[in-house]
Amino acid sequence: MAGNSIGSAFRLTTFGESHGPSMGGIIDGTPAGLTLDLDRIQEELGRRRPGQSELTTQRNEDDQVTFLSGLFEGKTTGTPIGFLVPNGDAKSEDYSHLKDRYRPSHADYTYDAKYGIRDHRGGGRASARETVSRVVAGAIARQLLEQMHPSSPAPEVGAYVERVQDIGMATPPQFYDRSRVDASPTRCPEPETASRMAIRIADVRNAGDTLGGSLVIVAKNMPAGWGEPVFDKLQADLAKALWSLPAVKGMEIGSGFSGTLMKGSEHNDIFVHDEKGMGTQTNRSGGIQGGISNGENLTIRIAFKPVATIVQSQDTVDKTGDSVRVKGKGRHDPCVLPRAVPLAEAMVLLVLADHALRQRSARL
Amino acid sequence: MAGNSIGSAFRLTTFGESHGPSMGGIIDGTPAGLTLDLDRIQEELGRRRPGQSELTTQRNEDDQVTFLSGLFEGKTTGTPIGFLVPNGDAKSEDYSHLKDRYRPSHADYTYDAKYGIRDHRGGGRASARETVSRVVAGAIARQLLEQMHPSSPAPEVGAYVERVQDIGMATPPQFYDRSRVDASPTRCPEPETASRMAIRIADVRNAGDTLGGSLVIVAKNMPAGWGEPVFDKLQADLAKALWSLPAVKGMEIGSGFSGTLMKGSEHNDIFVHDEKGMGTQTNRSGGIQGGISNGENLTIRIAFKPVATIVQSQDTVDKTGDSVRVKGKGRHDPCVLPRAVPLAEAMVLLVLADHALRQRSARL
Amino acid sequence: MAGNSIGSAFRLTTFGESHGPSMGGIIDGTPAGLTLDLDRIQEELGRRRPGQSELTTQRNEDDQVTFLSGLFEGKTTGTPIGFLVPNGDAKSEDYSHLKDRYRPSHADYTYDAKYGIRDHRGGGRASARETVSRVVAGAIARQLLEQMHPSSPAPEVGAYVERVQDIGMATPPQFYDRSRVDASPTRCPEPETASRMAIRIADVRNAGDTLGGSLVIVAKNMPAGWGEPVFDKLQADLAKALWSLPAVKGMEIGSGFSGTLMKGSEHNDIFVHDEKGMGTQTNRSGGIQGGISNGENLTIRIAFKPVATIVQSQDTVDKTGDSVRVKGKGRHDPCVLPRAVPLAEAMVLLVLADHALRQRSARL
Amino acid sequence: MAGNSIGSAFRLTTFGESHGPSMGGIIDGTPAGLTLDLDRIQEELGRRRPGQSELTTQRNEDDQVTFLSGLFEGKTTGTPIGFLVPNGDAKSEDYSHLKDRYRPSHADYTYDAKYGIRDHRGGGRASARETVSRVVAGAIARQLLEQMHPSSPAPEVGAYVERVQDIGMATPPQFYDRSRVDASPTRCPEPETASRMAIRIADVRNAGDTLGGSLVIVAKNMPAGWGEPVFDKLQADLAKALWSLPAVKGMEIGSGFSGTLMKGSEHNDIFVHDEKGMGTQTNRSGGIQGGISNGENLTIRIAFKPVATIVQSQDTVDKTGDSVRVKGKGRHDPCVLPRAVPLAEAMVLLVLADHALRQRSARL
Repeated sequence: MAGNSIGSAFRLTTFGESHGPSMGGIIDGTPAGLTLDLDRIQEELGRRRPGQSELTTQRNEDDQVTFLSGLFEGKTTGTPIGFLVPNGDAKSEDYSHLKDRYRPSHADYTYDAKYGIRDHRGGGRASARETVSRVVAGAIARQLLEQMHPSSPAPEVGAYVERVQDIGMATPPQFYDRSRVDASPTRCPEPETASRMAIRIADVRNAGDTLGGSLVIVAKNMPAGWGEPVFDKLQADLAKALWSLPAVKGMEIGSGFSGTLMKGSEHNDIFVHDEKGMGTQTNRSGGIQGGISNGENLTIRIAFKPVATIVQSQDTVDKTGDSVRVKGKGRHDPCVLPRAVPLAEAMVLLVLADHALRQRSARL
Repeated sequence: MAGNSIGSAFRLTTFGESHGPSMGGIIDGTPAGLTLDLDRIQEELGRRRPGQSELTTQRNEDDQVTFLSGLFEGKTTGTPIGFLVPNGDAKSEDYSHLKDRYRPSHADYTYDAKYGIRDHRGGGRASARETVSRVVAGAIARQLLEQMHPSSPAPEVGAYVERVQDIGMATPPQFYDRSRVDASPTRCPEPETASRMAIRIADVRNAGDTLGGSLVIVAKNMPAGWGEPVFDKLQADLAKALWSLPAVKGMEIGSGFSGTLMKGSEHNDIFVHDEKGMGTQTNRSGGIQGGISNGENLTIRIAFKPVATIVQSQDTVDKTGDSVRVKGKGRHDPCVLPRAVPLAEAMVLLVLADHALRQRSARL
Repeated sequence: MAGNSIGSAFRLTTFGESHGPSMGGIIDGTPAGLTLDLDRIQEELGRRRPGQSELTTQRNEDDQVTFLSGLFEGKTTGTPIGFLVPNGDAKSEDYSHLKDRYRPSHADYTYDAKYGIRDHRGGGRASARETVSRVVAGAIARQLLEQMHPSSPAPEVGAYVERVQDIGMATPPQFYDRSRVDASPTRCPEPETASRMAIRIADVRNAGDTLGGSLVIVAKNMPAGWGEPVFDKLQADLAKALWSLPAVKGMEIGSGFSGTLMKGSEHNDIFVHDEKGMGTQTNRSGGIQGGISNGENLTIRIAFKPVATIVQSQDTVDKTGDSVRVKGKGRHDPCVLPRAVPLAEAMVLLVLADHALRQRSARL
Repeated sequence: MAGNSIGSAFRLTTFGESHGPSMGGIIDGTPAGLTLDLDRIQEELGRRRPGQSELTTQRNEDDQVTFLSGLFEGKTTGTPIGFLVPNGDAKSEDYSHLKDRYRPSHADYTYDAKYGIRDHRGGGRASARETVSRVVAGAIARQLLEQMHPSSPAPEVGAYVERVQDIGMATPPQFYDRSRVDASPTRCPEPETASRMAIRIADVRNAGDTLGGSLVIVAKNMPAGWGEPVFDKLQADLAKALWSLPAVKGMEIGSGFSGTLMKGSEHNDIFVHDEKGMGTQTNRSGGIQGGISNGENLTIRIAFKPVATIVQSQDTVDKTGDSVRVKGKGRHDPCVLPRAVPLAEAMVLLVLADHALRQRSARL
């Protein structure tokens, strides 16, 4: 009943603590015959890598993934894919002062409450370092989706930073090519907004403080028919996957909260059928109706709270309940949004790969 | 790989179409020895029942649940609980004109796209009628949570309507007793706001249109320690459960989207330890840190889009792609929020009961 | 973590106690578009039905299955199939003397030890009556296997009684048509052996005693490629399914225990390739190699112990540990083998249907 | 829906091919606070290690396990335990002649039939090398069972070789201490029988041939109440676990096949209650009634076929269907039984640990 696996047909199980020897995982359910481009997997890891820009933590990790099984002469064999991403630059001494202290809005206290024991170094299992394994699996899911239906345009998943604190894009959610997203270290595809974000992040970092914001994730070239009502509706599995990321506090699909201000007659997406096939005039549904994809773009927004680790002294208590103060000494991101882009993409890719395979059982 | 089960240790599997003979399900994993108060289960069904007020659909269903197994002399035996809720007042002829037409923002098209065949009567499996089985299971989960730890105050889950379209409460999320929530058919606990909501709903219904809005769900008396990182974090399982409800388009936990406007130094919840034990000064985390409950109230907000069925003529296409018009003839809610209150409670209760049992394996 | 579900892609969940109102279940994962012949399902239930011959229990049950969902105009819709088989002829008073007494080699004591509470009437959940739901699902699995690959001969699963106590067939395991198996109420396809079995069963019944024996199950027209190493190997899932039947004490696949007397050079199955394609000269592997079907017939043997309920007085203890005597008063089979034939077929069919669907994800 | 995980509450997922860089796995669900004795884990691996005696394969592997997570200061933390067992002495060139040839009674053909691609080196994923990960997890399960109920004698699981070809013990199944079992490299606890087995194995090995036989596994100090009817009965999960081992062709619990020769009045286990509590006079049930442990010893027998790899030339076909001959060149066991002892123990331990945790949810 532990919870370190995700997916049914395409299933990832992960392990690893922030300051242990290695992160890693097992992907079970990759169909045989997939040609894996390992450089592209490494490239995704590079997008998540700490130290990639001045806006991120300065922990320095190579994040080289090693595959231990499931591949033969460049192709998947249908057997489980075991992989490792070693931890290199862990500085556990940065954390010794936190052994018995509960950092505000971290998982220190809850891990103790649950397990009665805790690897406190670098946040242990609760560290966002854990997400490195998700990126590996997501990168494989991406290639799987590309190769599953070679005759149709493959589903593509792209995320970007839409807003940092109150600095946001005015443009509604849409798909942006990665080159535009990655043009700025903020991963905001609008250059002017991106510049303002970068300045804000730098300012706040210099003040020893942190920021939150929102991401948009869009999947285009979606086939209709993915999703398994009533409990594994596509949006339900997407929600679970995305809410399993650290620091997520909000999520919207399609019209989201603002759609609740409309009337039904205004909100409904009218079906049209033209030379491109079935579609809808608007996409307030966000690409899903009744828990099943309708062929329109998936559009999702998620909110990340400001990073809990700040380089300021804060009140808290220790294990015995005594009042103490803590101050972040580790290397942390002032704003998690830019590095969360590949994480969010990975989680959506994992869900889509899973449902692409599950859909194979839907009809006789 | 179909998706009609939810939960691991406390697991619900459901079946049933809107106009079939019966809805029902099986609950597997209820511990033996639970004294079930069947009247209270029926009472929960009454809160969801169509036709309970002028603000809801006029479909008239008794919604009497029949238990077929798993109980002996008033107690659970540890064996699976099978149950039925028969469909009485189905008027399938209301739907014959929709056999080959895709209603905008419904699941008609996507079910056809997925399965190639569809029970079109009353929305079939995609009808919100399906949620009746969730309420039965949620009512059992509620009693399970009450009886599991008789020496501590039991976790309580309560939801209410916070906003209908732009008519909302100013008060921040908190726990309200059911008597206050159910005092108005809108299930908004603030009488003045509730009155304005009721008028708006009546107006919009008379215009053949529909509304959306937002719910708040609060769980109090939460123990610390529930949740299974990294994929079955408490918020992830809550998200999956809630997003599996029809018409959900948004969700927030704790500070949600608005929390992203704060800095870390403002957002962090400071720990305090007093005679009541460990706690936090604020609850921007919404009762969960690192995927595990911290003992503070769970606070969740979900957004429901305006109901898709409107009594107005709309453009759409039929199965062959030809342009047609449809107009709702069935009996539908003008605003799903009041009846969604027991649904949202049920989904949260199912997740909490599951994690309460899963937590039993966390320590030696 | 209760255990009332079986299968991954084709999944059965059951409920029901022997003397409760109804048995039943939910099948989740039947692909859409399957044309279900309900008469054939009822026919399978007839083969399991108590009272079908003088050799079985005289409990008189119609065993009419009612489907509540998942079907539309004679076809499956891909949504879960809920079904009931009501209990008609329960005589609970036959069991009142057993309320606190533990019948030897029954589940009375272990259910109490596990759950602390027990529906003692007719064996409750531990009664073989529970298997009626398996037969319903197995009958659907059979039709699924027939219709999944219309161009090839469909896999067929047939079982028969090979031995009752020491009265056995000399012929090695092979596929027999149902007409030959069902020609005798013993379900032994060799008439002369069947006659001797029938006499033995009648004799032993008259003495208030019971018998065991062995069944053979053969699946022919098997495709190569089914099975999911390393833990869900085809034989592992078959073993789990068959060992979940009441009274099973032994199982063999292919050469079984006797194969262990051979040397590798004698035991190996030599591959041949001819106009019918790939095959093996012998089939000591029983149709499975490395956990995956190889296209040869599945051949399985299972042993059923003598029925535990005897109409003789036996020593035992009651709930408080005091010595008491019990004597069977209910209506029971003197030999479970004939009625176990459809059960064994059902379990193998459930596993094959599950793996047929799982195989759809094996390749890109 | 691939099948490389086993267990629900205590769950092992494995990866690795015989000639890849490493075997390994993830154990999810180990409760926090377990003190792990790593030397004892290594000791179990030593019992499985190739090259441990003249009776086994001469492949030389250290089989040093490395733990990558889930442990902190010698105790488990409740987070997943990732581990590796590197492959050292792989000689892939021994297998190049087999690339396109199907060895009789191996998995070469079926893996090709399933996946269309195959890592042929050393049998790839189908090699018994895969079982090394099971032994690691089984060794942890053993320590978990020991520490879970410190006040009662811990469940102990012991296996031994009962028979090699036709050389078998006359003594009925019982628990033997490991020192007696391991006194002979055959792992038969009767010295005289062991000697004859050793001679037979040596003779057959010299002839380039192989042998099979049977193992007995006994679990003592079993609590009553483990097992989850109706599909996850204890014997069903044990069967699945044991049948997932390579080369298993038969299994018996308790009286097995021979019990089918008895009448019910002879076969029933009479309950007695004395100072040691509840028990049965005989144990034909093998420690399980109605799918739930009854507190008596679990007694299981499994049959292993003779090893398929022989150092003799055999007829077969290649991938294109042409007739060819193959001859084993790798390093293989002439008789798998001695090394199968720790494997069988591991599988039983995994199932017991899983059910020990699952049992925690059985009662309120």
